Amino acid sequence: MDELIDIDEQEHRFASARVARLATVTTDGAAHIVPCCFALLDDRTIVSAIDAKPKSTMALRRLDNIATNPRVSLVVDQYDDDWSQLWWVRSDGIATTLNSGVAYEAALDALAAKYEQYQVDRPQGVVISIEPNAWRSWSAKPLA
Amino acid sequence: MDELIDIDEQEHRFASARVARLATVTTDGAAHIVPCCFALLDDRTIVSAIDAKPKSTMALRRLDNIATNPRVSLVVDQYDDDWSQLWWVRSDGIATTLNSGVAYEAALDALAAKYEQYQVDRPQGVVISIEPNAWRSWSAKPLA
Repeated sequence: MDELIDIDEQEHRFASARVARLATVTTDGAAHIVPCCFALLDDRTIVSAIDAKPKSTMALRRLDNIATNPRVSLVVDQYDDDWSQLWWVRSDGIATTLNSGVAYEAALDALAAKYEQYQVDRPQGVVISIEPNAWRSWSAKPLA
Repeated sequence: MDELIDIDEQEHRFASARVARLATVTTDGAAHIVPCCFALLDDRTIVSAIDAKPKSTMALRRLDNIATNPRVSLVVDQYDDDWSQLWWVRSDGIATTLNSGVAYEAALDALAAKYEQYQVDRPQGVVISIEPNAWRSWSAKPLA
């Protein structure tokens, strides 16, 4: 029995997840994927920070991809060996990058509110900001 | 301290993961992402089955994407609120689809060996077969 998840529950599950996976398209047209921390801001904008430093080469790849093709896709999901527990929520949207300013600081605030590591060590790098244009979800069983 | 994972450990972690996330590029050039079960066959080919039936519309999307652009990306990762435990392994490759034949049955055998659900209910649908052309991995801490 497959069920779409209702919109509030879908958003709740997405926002609560500790990790998402972000798919982008490379500058030469291949798919690319990375896990990422993220926060849902004002119930609509998805933000993720580049921590800078060690992962910089990889982070730059992600940013190059977005600069060339901003049409990204994020998924959060639950895996369990009991497949009746499976569900996922996906958001497709348009990504932009932020380097400073009010929206940049608001994104970092939302990330710090969700992850204590970001309170201790506020990210210094670029923020990826995604405006979703489609949500899709699936659950192996109806919600309780 | 960021570490690349050595090639054997990378393969072991990838093969052992119960779920991966698969990124494809849509027919109109956007990124697309889904969680999926998978198996690593002969230490080199990644296979994933379409269960057919309920998810058929979504499955068709994935197959349409691959038919138009076979350059996919898969990631397996570990999330933990203790970020020193984070790691991921990514494989970029070329996807093809299998409908029958020796390679098709071998893929289903590998999937059934990994997931008992597939022993009970062998997938009837298409198999996605991916030949990796690049592996990349990252770990927040050195291996023990």
